[in-house]
Amino acid sequence: MSQITAIILAAGLGTRMKSALPKVMHPVAHRPMIRHLITTLETATQGDDLRIVAVIGPDMPVLEAAVAPHPFVIQHDRRGTGHAVQMALPELPDSGTVLILMGDAPLLRPETVRRLIETRQTKGAALLVGAFRPVNPTGFGRIIQAADGSITRIVEEKDLAPDQKAIPLCNGGIYAVDAARLPGLLARLTPNNAQGEFYLTDIVEHAVSDGALVLPLDIAADEIHGVNSRADLAFVEGIAQARYRAAAMAGGATLLDPASVYFAADTKIGQDVTIGPNVVFGPSVTVADRVTIHAFSHIEGATVASGAIIGPFARLRPGAQIGDGAHVGNFVEVKNAVLGAGAKANHLTYLGDADIGAGANIGAGTITCNYDGINKHRTIVGAGAFIGSNSALVAPVVIGDGALIGAGSTITRDVPADALAVVRGELVQKEGAAERFRETRRAAKAKKKD
Amino acid sequence: MSQITAIILAAGLGTRMKSALPKVMHPVAHRPMIRHLITTLETATQGDDLRIVAVIGPDMPVLEAAVAPHPFVIQHDRRGTGHAVQMALPELPDSGTVLILMGDAPLLRPETVRRLIETRQTKGAALLVGAFRPVNPTGFGRIIQAADGSITRIVEEKDLAPDQKAIPLCNGGIYAVDAARLPGLLARLTPNNAQGEFYLTDIVEHAVSDGALVLPLDIAADEIHGVNSRADLAFVEGIAQARYRAAAMAGGATLLDPASVYFAADTKIGQDVTIGPNVVFGPSVTVADRVTIHAFSHIEGATVASGAIIGPFARLRPGAQIGDGAHVGNFVEVKNAVLGAGAKANHLTYLGDADIGAGANIGAGTITCNYDGINKHRTIVGAGAFIGSNSALVAPVVIGDGALIGAGSTITRDVPADALAVVRGELVQKEGAAERFRETRRAAKAKKKD
Amino acid sequence: MSQITAIILAAGLGTRMKSALPKVMHPVAHRPMIRHLITTLETATQGDDLRIVAVIGPDMPVLEAAVAPHPFVIQHDRRGTGHAVQMALPELPDSGTVLILMGDAPLLRPETVRRLIETRQTKGAALLVGAFRPVNPTGFGRIIQAADGSITRIVEEKDLAPDQKAIPLCNGGIYAVDAARLPGLLARLTPNNAQGEFYLTDIVEHAVSDGALVLPLDIAADEIHGVNSRADLAFVEGIAQARYRAAAMAGGATLLDPASVYFAADTKIGQDVTIGPNVVFGPSVTVADRVTIHAFSHIEGATVASGAIIGPFARLRPGAQIGDGAHVGNFVEVKNAVLGAGAKANHLTYLGDADIGAGANIGAGTITCNYDGINKHRTIVGAGAFIGSNSALVAPVVIGDGALIGAGSTITRDVPADALAVVRGELVQKEGAAERFRETRRAAKAKKKD
Repeated sequence: MSQITAIILAAGLGTRMKSALPKVMHPVAHRPMIRHLITTLETATQGDDLRIVAVIGPDMPVLEAAVAPHPFVIQHDRRGTGHAVQMALPELPDSGTVLILMGDAPLLRPETVRRLIETRQTKGAALLVGAFRPVNPTGFGRIIQAADGSITRIVEEKDLAPDQKAIPLCNGGIYAVDAARLPGLLARLTPNNAQGEFYLTDIVEHAVSDGALVLPLDIAADEIHGVNSRADLAFVEGIAQARYRAAAMAGGATLLDPASVYFAADTKIGQDVTIGPNVVFGPSVTVADRVTIHAFSHIEGATVASGAIIGPFARLRPGAQIGDGAHVGNFVEVKNAVLGAGAKANHLTYLGDADIGAGANIGAGTITCNYDGINKHRTIVGAGAFIGSNSALVAPVVIGDGALIGAGSTITRDVPADALAVVRGELVQKEGAAERFRETRRAAKAKKKD
Repeated sequence: MSQITAIILAAGLGTRMKSALPKVMHPVAHRPMIRHLITTLETATQGDDLRIVAVIGPDMPVLEAAVAPHPFVIQHDRRGTGHAVQMALPELPDSGTVLILMGDAPLLRPETVRRLIETRQTKGAALLVGAFRPVNPTGFGRIIQAADGSITRIVEEKDLAPDQKAIPLCNGGIYAVDAARLPGLLARLTPNNAQGEFYLTDIVEHAVSDGALVLPLDIAADEIHGVNSRADLAFVEGIAQARYRAAAMAGGATLLDPASVYFAADTKIGQDVTIGPNVVFGPSVTVADRVTIHAFSHIEGATVASGAIIGPFARLRPGAQIGDGAHVGNFVEVKNAVLGAGAKANHLTYLGDADIGAGANIGAGTITCNYDGINKHRTIVGAGAFIGSNSALVAPVVIGDGALIGAGSTITRDVPADALAVVRGELVQKEGAAERFRETRRAAKAKKKD
Repeated sequence: MSQITAIILAAGLGTRMKSALPKVMHPVAHRPMIRHLITTLETATQGDDLRIVAVIGPDMPVLEAAVAPHPFVIQHDRRGTGHAVQMALPELPDSGTVLILMGDAPLLRPETVRRLIETRQTKGAALLVGAFRPVNPTGFGRIIQAADGSITRIVEEKDLAPDQKAIPLCNGGIYAVDAARLPGLLARLTPNNAQGEFYLTDIVEHAVSDGALVLPLDIAADEIHGVNSRADLAFVEGIAQARYRAAAMAGGATLLDPASVYFAADTKIGQDVTIGPNVVFGPSVTVADRVTIHAFSHIEGATVASGAIIGPFARLRPGAQIGDGAHVGNFVEVKNAVLGAGAKANHLTYLGDADIGAGANIGAGTITCNYDGINKHRTIVGAGAFIGSNSALVAPVVIGDGALIGAGSTITRDVPADALAVVRGELVQKEGAAERFRETRRAAKAKKKD
């Protein structure tokens, strides 16, 4: 068990986002960027003693809450990345490894965090610099290596000698540092530059001048992308989605058009699941084996048991629990409702706050009236019951097992098991009256135009 | 203020489109291609004296209407692009700049039009040729330049010398010409070629032989794409959409998957707006700040005020005005209807020709019956009213402020403020009858099979 | 007429698919992969005497059924591709051409099959090897050619000499063989390799050593893709879709975003059809000229006549027949139902097992109650009838021509032509009662919290 401390730099204002929300709170796959990093750190350090410290800006209460229960420190003056890390110094232990990560670069993989920690320890490096090889290195700081591979310098684009421009290895802004050395390195940072800021990158030259071992660690370029604009955010979302799609397919799901299926970070998909084009998953969804999800389905906070058929045009909202082999069809919304095995709600239906028994058939246009304007109430439909089309079930109400509700009924009282209940008005029928009606209305129309 | 005359060549038949519609009338982002050019010209020449002349084919009344109030001339015989411009001669002034644009290339930017005008005037060129650098120049006419950058010739692909094939600069078919010189240049065109057509490109060699200054103007390749097939049309649509998406994100909107959001040319999107995947905007939509539009929403001719929540699966049609913080939920259609601040219509509802008061709650399955087969009528729902689920409001009808309509009611008369109104039939309930019913039907089924 | 025998290798387990379904049964564009090959073979060999033999694995009844009426042979032991072909020997004729195709590579074009057959015969080759030029040949077997273009050897990646690595021509695993020679070539295969398998590729060296002519046939790389994982399946689906989209556009349809329109292998689309983004076609759909299909439509087993308008958010299910100029609008489902010319069902409606007459207007929220829990019944709506909103039509039922049904009615008996029928309950209205109701409910809520 080793002592791991992760500093997440999250104080950036992100002005190019044009948003009232702190930058690192913008979600990727329905999870704030900084939470991706926290989850990644937790996954990567199981068995270690992990401590996370977020460096945030002032007046960011939503960010403080998102980081909890991990501690945060506030960087009041924005004097650069080195200054930001200095803010965290009081929270740092004096041994083990300190990871320094960017809160707006949420695509780092747990395996990479693991490699950062282990490589630094195994190689006995004072400092490990996360490095990457972009398709086009222009604009990034280049890593200058000695013959043994160790880093001798990091050179910014504008300071590159002509023969250094082709160097492919760039500084990813991610570091693993010997905790015992970090305070000393930070203490030597100076704001002697045009911006008057303390640059974190300068710890490299100080470590090198101490004669300490500084090494690069190659990281895939797709893990390094940072977010500074909404366009960056969309780009990073796209990479995250591509990973989730590939994982679902590798697990045995067919995605007819993977690029049109959107997962949340925590979506769980079974084997021999078929997902049509244009399916959106929100947070907290579990889909069991052999489920079919047709096109244009929107699913969040729901569990779908094996063999169920969902959609097209189905919406499952939080608390929807769809039983084995149950069907939820087109223009059907299910919220906080349990559908028993084999139950069917195939058309134009709203099931809210309901328990639908196994094998029950909910006719087209059925509405559970769960809200009276003040309170929500529950509708219980028994196993094998049949709800005729266009019915309204006014909760709280219980329809017994095997009961049958006639089409167009508004049911306000409980119906016993196996009973037949119909609520219906009286028929008024007038022969030939349709044409008279149309004549009156045509006259009204003509009059209107005058 | 300078005199700008723009000739838009729009007579092409577009036979590869396989369409009854004139080619330049095919829409990009819900706007006919030729209207894009007209809007671009108007934007680019504010403060100038702009005159637009469209050269169209015979029997294109929809195109004549689309060009109005600008004049058009008809090219009866299709004898080439030079001949088309000759048709416009009677409409041209004898001073200022004449722009010659292709009606089927709608992606030209206003800034580029501005540069064409200003560069010609500043440089004192008789003729400016819009030029571009495609990824692969094969097939395009190449621009041959003198040492001073001026154009000496344009050479067609088939006439290229081997060492000219690598020339990257190609003729974009767009021109800015000194109005005083254009008639003379056009007069010298001849149909001495295999097709027997008058080629507009030949004005270059005539201008050069006059010793006039002919210059190229570099234009981004994505502005030059012309449309000759439905596949081209889809390609150009894609470029236009990419521009609108980038603009929305730069303005502070989050697009979860930009490639799945479709804008109209005139869509206006506020700041801190979140747009889920698969959202379609038709013409004339304005979305204010902090609006959330969930996946699978289809919005046209609507305004959405700040903080409103739309979708998923919502459809806003022309005349929909959604108030501050109002909700329009799944499988809800709103047409020519005003929703007050905080009003909610969350499920399976049709609101047509209606005024819904602030804070009113429209239950699931509510239908405004706005059409009697001949006329349309209006439904008024007061502030704070509660419409029970599965109700039908038969217009014209007024539901007063704070009134409460019981579930399943068909309301045909006005309901006073704060009244409670229910329309309901009588309950007929028979114990054990459901099973008898099923037996009868099973018997019928068995008989049918015999 | 020539004798063509096609062996389709379809015994692979496809373990990376993680599926209970045999690999070649996974669908592409709603058609099992092996059925694509069968259709392609049938299309390519019209006028020839075609015989297809599938080599399948044991216990694959769904695959046996999919291949029928063509015969299959079972490869019980999985001893390689050569062994698989040996299984088919008893089914082979002794003259003509034998094609050997991979059941998991469904993108082969009929024109290519034709070229395989004709080139082998014309050139008098004993063996024709389908070859392709991938972007990156690494990993594929390379084809070594003599000066005359004939194949002298096929060399696997691991056996390549350094100067052979750049050879672009690769073995596509597809063969056309002289039927008279195939048994002799197969007889000489041996399992002398690390896997202990009989490799089909080895027939090349045996044919060459016989002095027979072995030629490559260049096939486009996009026809060769095989499916070994769900990711491959999605990739192949994407290529198939791209072909269908291009064909629809070439035929005169506008696809606003081609990449978001999904066709089935047998979808038929007319001219001047406009298809919005996010439209899904299932099997057996025919769309006539001048039809508009708006975004978010899901169509299978349906015919749509000219000038009809579908969607957005429309679902047409099997048996839907939409007449000339008819409208099917948002949140409307049509199943096994005929809509006459000009009929309209524009909002929130379910039409199942119904005949809707020409010009009839189906109000918002109309439901045909076609199912009584045991049997399905038919609803007939006459020409020009008007069904008021939120009505339920309980089948079997006939609404006569021109009849008018009042809003909110549940109709259980036939209504004569031109009659007006309303079924409605009684109004109970209490002044001021809404506020009393809310107070009671607020009290209940407060009590609940205590």
